[in-house]
Amino acid sequence: MIDLRSDTVTKPTKEMRQAAFDAPVGDDVYGEDPSINELERLAAEKLGKEAALYVPSGTQGNQIAVLTHCQPGQEVILEATSHIFVYEGAAISALAGVQPMTIKGERGAMNPRDVAAAIRGENIHFPETGLICLENTHNKAGGAVVPLENMQAIYETAKERGIPVHLDGARLFNAAVASGVDVKEYAACTDTVQFCLSKGLGAPVGSIIAGSATFITRARKWRKRLGGGMRQAGIIAAPGLVALRTMIDRLADDHANARILAEGLGAIAGLRIENQVDTNILLVNTEDAGLNSEEFLARLKDVGVLAVPFGPNTVRFVTHYDVSREQVREVVGIMEELLR
Amino acid sequence: MIDLRSDTVTKPTKEMRQAAFDAPVGDDVYGEDPSINELERLAAEKLGKEAALYVPSGTQGNQIAVLTHCQPGQEVILEATSHIFVYEGAAISALAGVQPMTIKGERGAMNPRDVAAAIRGENIHFPETGLICLENTHNKAGGAVVPLENMQAIYETAKERGIPVHLDGARLFNAAVASGVDVKEYAACTDTVQFCLSKGLGAPVGSIIAGSATFITRARKWRKRLGGGMRQAGIIAAPGLVALRTMIDRLADDHANARILAEGLGAIAGLRIENQVDTNILLVNTEDAGLNSEEFLARLKDVGVLAVPFGPNTVRFVTHYDVSREQVREVVGIMEELLR
Amino acid sequence: MIDLRSDTVTKPTKEMRQAAFDAPVGDDVYGEDPSINELERLAAEKLGKEAALYVPSGTQGNQIAVLTHCQPGQEVILEATSHIFVYEGAAISALAGVQPMTIKGERGAMNPRDVAAAIRGENIHFPETGLICLENTHNKAGGAVVPLENMQAIYETAKERGIPVHLDGARLFNAAVASGVDVKEYAACTDTVQFCLSKGLGAPVGSIIAGSATFITRARKWRKRLGGGMRQAGIIAAPGLVALRTMIDRLADDHANARILAEGLGAIAGLRIENQVDTNILLVNTEDAGLNSEEFLARLKDVGVLAVPFGPNTVRFVTHYDVSREQVREVVGIMEELLR
Amino acid sequence: MIDLRSDTVTKPTKEMRQAAFDAPVGDDVYGEDPSINELERLAAEKLGKEAALYVPSGTQGNQIAVLTHCQPGQEVILEATSHIFVYEGAAISALAGVQPMTIKGERGAMNPRDVAAAIRGENIHFPETGLICLENTHNKAGGAVVPLENMQAIYETAKERGIPVHLDGARLFNAAVASGVDVKEYAACTDTVQFCLSKGLGAPVGSIIAGSATFITRARKWRKRLGGGMRQAGIIAAPGLVALRTMIDRLADDHANARILAEGLGAIAGLRIENQVDTNILLVNTEDAGLNSEEFLARLKDVGVLAVPFGPNTVRFVTHYDVSREQVREVVGIMEELLR
Repeated sequence: MIDLRSDTVTKPTKEMRQAAFDAPVGDDVYGEDPSINELERLAAEKLGKEAALYVPSGTQGNQIAVLTHCQPGQEVILEATSHIFVYEGAAISALAGVQPMTIKGERGAMNPRDVAAAIRGENIHFPETGLICLENTHNKAGGAVVPLENMQAIYETAKERGIPVHLDGARLFNAAVASGVDVKEYAACTDTVQFCLSKGLGAPVGSIIAGSATFITRARKWRKRLGGGMRQAGIIAAPGLVALRTMIDRLADDHANARILAEGLGAIAGLRIENQVDTNILLVNTEDAGLNSEEFLARLKDVGVLAVPFGPNTVRFVTHYDVSREQVREVVGIMEELLR
Repeated sequence: MIDLRSDTVTKPTKEMRQAAFDAPVGDDVYGEDPSINELERLAAEKLGKEAALYVPSGTQGNQIAVLTHCQPGQEVILEATSHIFVYEGAAISALAGVQPMTIKGERGAMNPRDVAAAIRGENIHFPETGLICLENTHNKAGGAVVPLENMQAIYETAKERGIPVHLDGARLFNAAVASGVDVKEYAACTDTVQFCLSKGLGAPVGSIIAGSATFITRARKWRKRLGGGMRQAGIIAAPGLVALRTMIDRLADDHANARILAEGLGAIAGLRIENQVDTNILLVNTEDAGLNSEEFLARLKDVGVLAVPFGPNTVRFVTHYDVSREQVREVVGIMEELLR
Repeated sequence: MIDLRSDTVTKPTKEMRQAAFDAPVGDDVYGEDPSINELERLAAEKLGKEAALYVPSGTQGNQIAVLTHCQPGQEVILEATSHIFVYEGAAISALAGVQPMTIKGERGAMNPRDVAAAIRGENIHFPETGLICLENTHNKAGGAVVPLENMQAIYETAKERGIPVHLDGARLFNAAVASGVDVKEYAACTDTVQFCLSKGLGAPVGSIIAGSATFITRARKWRKRLGGGMRQAGIIAAPGLVALRTMIDRLADDHANARILAEGLGAIAGLRIENQVDTNILLVNTEDAGLNSEEFLARLKDVGVLAVPFGPNTVRFVTHYDVSREQVREVVGIMEELLR
Repeated sequence: MIDLRSDTVTKPTKEMRQAAFDAPVGDDVYGEDPSINELERLAAEKLGKEAALYVPSGTQGNQIAVLTHCQPGQEVILEATSHIFVYEGAAISALAGVQPMTIKGERGAMNPRDVAAAIRGENIHFPETGLICLENTHNKAGGAVVPLENMQAIYETAKERGIPVHLDGARLFNAAVASGVDVKEYAACTDTVQFCLSKGLGAPVGSIIAGSATFITRARKWRKRLGGGMRQAGIIAAPGLVALRTMIDRLADDHANARILAEGLGAIAGLRIENQVDTNILLVNTEDAGLNSEEFLARLKDVGVLAVPFGPNTVRFVTHYDVSREQVREVVGIMEELLR
């Protein structure tokens, strides 16, 4: 099987497993796990933030951000197809009691004017706007890189009104590698950032949330309430350190592979590439092949290729560390065969 | 002052005050207030529902509906400019822990295909769709009557998936009077309905929520938690009974007045009527007069007319029982003068 | 029927009905109801607080206090049999997301040392203590007056730690009349106070919550979310004004009646008075009569007397404006007969 | 340092680290991690439940149980010093919107009659009782084993009323080893059980929640919302499997060590053992030594021993895999010296 469903399926490398084996550990609830402490220190440094917190998943990182920034009865502005709105089980409303105010973006980027217009004024009937959430790269927009200028403009608007900004940067390093913009620059347009160690960076488990020291202290308590306080978590932090230290630059390979895949598939009659391939995500429309996404995926599976549905006629492919260039080319060949 | 801000500003009639004075009362928390009991019985009968509950406001009626129908972590489908989403302080998220999934409607009516597409499938990442909310007439759409067929189509879709439907019918009687469709027919496309006694019907306080007997039993407990359980509420139910018995047909006058106002204002250079005036609401665009809504309202106030802002260049006027045809004509004259 | 179930069953007086009939009204959501404004002004003045807010029930007043003072994940210290904990449907947890930390009191009064000990220290596992709630008079403790000194001591402890104090003063005027302490003095030991117009004071509907001007501004928004924002609420505020102006001193009669009832019933073999009768509440133990509370109440009902169960063998009687001294004596006679 | 603060400080064994190194893994959000699947299968089997779910912490296991069993506005009966009430940041109220109804137990065991009395009847003012939570062994009661008969009696009461029972069995295997009762028998008195792999069993991270297959399916969605859905979690599940397969019987050593420590410390003038030492927890009162717990702990730390405060004059010691019998004896010697 060539598994292109997600970069979350990457398996830890030998070096990561060795790091788990060797990891100095302690009880992280007491703040005594050296591997966790080192990972949090390094992550904060890379993002240019005061402090960071290790959490078991990107979803938990995002939820903690919303819980820590907001009060119940507030509104959160976010893109209409953002992960937080679409894929987190309505948790921001269930846990934090906030209402999403969605804005349709362009390749994942909300228009700063739309954001400004969506911020609520004073009125007894209105919720206050408590947070603006960005996503970069943007998953549903096909791994699109949200331009730094767009983030800067939104951040400026937010600061004028005293509204915090959170970045769901699950794939922030993909954005940085693709655009050549340092993650610090992206992070500078936010109050808090979440990024995943377990996607393109290949670590088995975990994400980071970073922000001011005060914020992280409060976030730590919400992590405890959500049950994200773990004990000898160094076992998974150590592979995370390997990921952060050695896996960033190689994301360029995933991006190159995605472009090769796009060219190959785009040339096949019946398939249409829906997105501009900025990073490691490819959205393929199957309508002209007379197949809906579920039918197409079933056939793909029969010939040894996995992907996921992303709409009635849209299929998402994600390149990652465990798929080589040869395999990408193999996939193109398989699909040429399949749709002949 | 001629007050066209809202039909909520209507003052109780002499007959309503007399009814309050004479009202047989008891402790409604014990279910012993005869005026409340009669009002709830009559309201249920009018809507063709098994049972009804008196609540202090339309907002509380809507919130109780969401709390009773839904579980935290579910999603509620509603129109993008609906009252529940825009004007209730994010309460459905704050109190019931549900996430709104908004759909842009056409004159307040969501396309049934859009509704069907917005219902979530089974996926560990997705909230379940727990409720669909309709609004008729639709306030933000300028008092538009949502067609019965539209409601029927959405209700059918909902029933196929086992999803309940709630109607925010704050101005349902306006819809019925304008369309000639009985409120029972509208109510038949819903599981629960909320309507207001205090808007066009002129009662001083209160709304009704109606549904199955089982639903109302559970709703009653949520009303208690929200603090809507009142004692000798017959004092306000009795005027509500007068409203329900005597004020429905006269809504036609408000609608006629709104049309007269629309014709008059529409003929004034600088003003543009934004909506098709189905009922008692008129949306006037002030852009061509070189005034934004706040500036325009300030001038209006100086000459004795009140309305409310409804957008950067949009002003809402609402006709109601306390504004006569003569006053409506007077307003047209005043504004001709003002914009000359 | 002589109805001693609660002072909530009192019916509005002729004067109150006249006040409703005559009430100047406006739309209170716009802050334009003169009767509401006058009632809120007078209530704040009587309590020595900056501002006040009219709400449809005591429960809503208490819930708004908790929602406005607290953040989710905090803890609220309150007496183990307090109304907020026992009788409000777990609403402080459902709506405000706070956890009650209960302390068993002595005649409704928590020991200040117990309160101090219950305040949480800093620990990643602990909720912060967000509020202390008092109740005076204390319903479950048989209308006991909580001594001013007790409230002062708790308030001092609270202030040292920066924790706000809310008083559920549903029957605060009973405490004031019984003890000769001005309500202002009680209110001075609190940040916010809720009291009911609809119990011993005899108004048909409503309660007041009072505090700082800033607090009331924020509380007003929570009232809107809970659906407590009403329109021409002057209709019920006007009787509330009559209650506040004319019904306070006469609470002494209710208290005298309760003592007469206690003496009478206490002398009947089989009955035992459980509480020291400070105000208008009497708790009668029926065990020695060989009857549990439900059985006893059923027999009472047959002979025209109503009360409520307050434990397996405890029955609560409440005196109020609609029960005269003669009726109280009649009840004693009826029960002597009944238990002979 | 001899670290007796908690059994959570145990470090993974060589065998566990090797298991992490070798673990077959997959993406557990897709249900494809073989190590997770095997751990969940084995855990369910050991408890005699249909299904199980791996979660990052005991707190998350408990919170998911409450979220899955309950609705907001319900009440949860639990022991007054239970972990869920005292140590989980008020999360059951913050996340699930339920109100704790606490009962003071005897050595951690609630009297079944008290439980029956605490279950709420039907009343518009009352929350429904939605869940009963037990804890075995009981941490605050000094690791006391709650007798099987006690659990059976409570379960029977619960079943009669249709109320589910959840067991916080963070240290359930300690109870089983100490009492000779199979964990299956304890689990049979519950609907759901949570137990920790990371305390006495020595695994680095994680807990299990077990129950019916239907329950676990719903719990899995709440785990996702809380951010407990991890990717290649086999890396930590594999050590958990080692823990479950090889570390249970050896808990007897920890218990023996705790008794040795209790005998040794109990013989020292100034110290008093507060609890009957059933398992691996020892509560030592320091009052007679003229030291409060913080002072005592500071001195202990100076001589190389760590424990935690458990009250103003109470210190908790916990024996575990990383403290040998020799070290326990050493601690006795050190403290004899210290308090001479």
